[in-house]
Amino acid sequence: MGLKCLIIAAGQGSRLQQRGDSKPLIPILGIPLIERVIRSAMEAGAEEFYVVIGWQSNLVRDFLERLAKRLAIQITPLVNEDWEKENGLSVLKARDVLQEPFLLLMADHLFDPELVRSLTTHSLPDEEVALVVDSDIHNPLIDMDDVTRVKVKNGKICDIGKEMTDFNGFDTGIFLCSSAIFEALEQNREKDGDTTLSGAIRVLAEDGRAKAISSSNGFWIDVDDPAAFKRAEKALLDRLRDKLTDGPVSRYLNRPISVMFSRHLVKLDITPNQISLFLFLCSLVATGLFMMGGYIFLLIGGVLAQFASIVDGCDGEVARLKYQGSDFGGWFDAVLDRYADAFLLFGLTWHLLAREANGWVLFTGFMAIIGSFMLSYTADKYDNLMRKRIRAGSGAGLRMGRDVRVFLIFLGAATNMVLPVLVIIAVVMNVEVVRRVRIASVG
Amino acid sequence: MGLKCLIIAAGQGSRLQQRGDSKPLIPILGIPLIERVIRSAMEAGAEEFYVVIGWQSNLVRDFLERLAKRLAIQITPLVNEDWEKENGLSVLKARDVLQEPFLLLMADHLFDPELVRSLTTHSLPDEEVALVVDSDIHNPLIDMDDVTRVKVKNGKICDIGKEMTDFNGFDTGIFLCSSAIFEALEQNREKDGDTTLSGAIRVLAEDGRAKAISSSNGFWIDVDDPAAFKRAEKALLDRLRDKLTDGPVSRYLNRPISVMFSRHLVKLDITPNQISLFLFLCSLVATGLFMMGGYIFLLIGGVLAQFASIVDGCDGEVARLKYQGSDFGGWFDAVLDRYADAFLLFGLTWHLLAREANGWVLFTGFMAIIGSFMLSYTADKYDNLMRKRIRAGSGAGLRMGRDVRVFLIFLGAATNMVLPVLVIIAVVMNVEVVRRVRIASVG
Repeated sequence: MGLKCLIIAAGQGSRLQQRGDSKPLIPILGIPLIERVIRSAMEAGAEEFYVVIGWQSNLVRDFLERLAKRLAIQITPLVNEDWEKENGLSVLKARDVLQEPFLLLMADHLFDPELVRSLTTHSLPDEEVALVVDSDIHNPLIDMDDVTRVKVKNGKICDIGKEMTDFNGFDTGIFLCSSAIFEALEQNREKDGDTTLSGAIRVLAEDGRAKAISSSNGFWIDVDDPAAFKRAEKALLDRLRDKLTDGPVSRYLNRPISVMFSRHLVKLDITPNQISLFLFLCSLVATGLFMMGGYIFLLIGGVLAQFASIVDGCDGEVARLKYQGSDFGGWFDAVLDRYADAFLLFGLTWHLLAREANGWVLFTGFMAIIGSFMLSYTADKYDNLMRKRIRAGSGAGLRMGRDVRVFLIFLGAATNMVLPVLVIIAVVMNVEVVRRVRIASVG
Repeated sequence: MGLKCLIIAAGQGSRLQQRGDSKPLIPILGIPLIERVIRSAMEAGAEEFYVVIGWQSNLVRDFLERLAKRLAIQITPLVNEDWEKENGLSVLKARDVLQEPFLLLMADHLFDPELVRSLTTHSLPDEEVALVVDSDIHNPLIDMDDVTRVKVKNGKICDIGKEMTDFNGFDTGIFLCSSAIFEALEQNREKDGDTTLSGAIRVLAEDGRAKAISSSNGFWIDVDDPAAFKRAEKALLDRLRDKLTDGPVSRYLNRPISVMFSRHLVKLDITPNQISLFLFLCSLVATGLFMMGGYIFLLIGGVLAQFASIVDGCDGEVARLKYQGSDFGGWFDAVLDRYADAFLLFGLTWHLLAREANGWVLFTGFMAIIGSFMLSYTADKYDNLMRKRIRAGSGAGLRMGRDVRVFLIFLGAATNMVLPVLVIIAVVMNVEVVRRVRIASVG
């Protein structure tokens, strides 16, 4: 059945008070910390949530109630009146409701769902716990003064604590627990009054019952103070940049700028599809400017088209940052892009024909439009087999995506050399289509 | 492991002698009967073949050797010197090589792979055989004077034979056998000298060991005499017609004609891709004719374009009839069709502009081209989800595929009313795209 997940969200988070009253509710790039944790856990397979609340419990409880409705999931709040004390007490609050193995997460630790998946794919013997350990001890996202250190040997935790000097990893705050964790907490409390979670892990580690699942490149960050908050924001944005399908102009010009825009757009109540539509309208206006004739309009149109192309990444970025991605969104964006490309090239063709009605210009414009279309068509149309063959054959070949196309249009408009650009687009796009056909045919 | 398949191809087939010396090698729509049986069995999962040969055994053996190489499969010939006697003796030839359950097929029975799949998905207990029984007793493909009749009750065969009057199905010649079939044949031979396969089935049926897998609409035909051969040819061609994605013009005009062409094309050494390419060149010539100006050229171009559209089904039909279908073929055809559509519409636009240079004409032509493209793009681009939504929403809606588009172009050219047709295409295609976006967005 569904994986259960316990999230500790009871603390005050006083070091982040400037950003909000309740730490779990502090929005980072438009989404509260606790929501990010819950949605990442959902992506990794968690289905039922228990959240231990304490400081500002009413605020958090209200938010969780609305979130549960919005995501159509079950979230049960558990109140810890002793939220000012150690975090182990928060974990103990779940003792009566969680028997089978469960995920244990921290409301202020953001992470890549892959890290949780690496845990849940391991089988957990009864009476054990497992912790994801970050074995990259030079991880720049880590605050060395605050992080919990771990010593791992042969896949087991030997020791855990903040003060250790002999360590080879960090506690990511991502656990898979059996009910043994509750017993260890109780045992430790009775023995020497230690109610920290780390203390309980140390007890289990002594018996060889604390597994370590090492990861050296998974993203995670403890959002504990303003500096960490800034690092987390930057890390979330940086992760948008490594989109493998980005063409050269996208990678080096468009994407860095669009990420800057997205950073602010996430804070507004704008959907990705609204962004797509707005940018399409920009391209239409650019087309109109091209058709007006004259260098000034041509230049402004070119700049506007390039602007739209730069910001074209924002719809996808906002969707990823705000968990608003959808099949329709990607499809809608692609459809609008095809229309936008065709309109821009038509605008340039019209611009030239207005100067001088010439059959070759008309033909060139037509071939540029058809080539651009066919490039997208051949990229999307083929099934997986074709895609693999074409990829295998492409090697370091030309990447002539939309980013390059619009950049060429911009250059042509800015330098008032429209015909050469149309010729280049017409030739390059259609040659690339022929190349794809040849590669695909070699089966 | 791989399903083994025994095929009986020993008989003389004297009633079909006018069509070829060896019955299994007689080509039907370009492919020898035995190759059709083997390829259909392969589609249904068979991987290793044993073929009992007799009459003209050298000819058949040579063919099978080449076929095995061509298809990269294993085909073992088993010679039955007594090929003039009953068919049960041919089955017995496989006694030493086939122990586990195997498919038993007749070289002169063509069938839809689905029928074989209906057998192999049933589990066969040891000591039993199963036969696909055609329960459609009015099946027009059946020669009532020659067919073997079957009486089925509760999923078991009660009786089988040619003379029976009390029957409720027909023997399709498609069996799944355990080695019990060999014992039944031996037993029957010793008892009363009966060496027919039906006799052995009757023996098993008496013990309740002959399962019947009923089918009422699967295609199969016993190609036994010239009349059956003609029926089989017609049936294979008819099956090409029920392509669900065909638009209205395709269904009622193009497809019936293209099937007539395909019937002859399969006999030539022409590949489906060569057909696609030739038809694309026809569209290019039509475009050139449009651009020449004048009604005569316009008319000839329109006829040529419509001809190419009519025959456009042939590549797919030949591919299906000759088992030459490939992922690349379908993709290549689609890519060429997109170019052809765009060129034809460009030709018409040019034709109009040559008469009178007019911005609205240029814009209309552009919108017609972009609309046609987007219609194909939106149809292919979206993933399964989108496809389902759009289908669910389309209802009895407009089907504006390539068939309709080219037919409109032909009408426009033939009636010399090019502009109205361009306007219609521009409006209808783009409206349809907008409709799809709206349907897809309702998720």
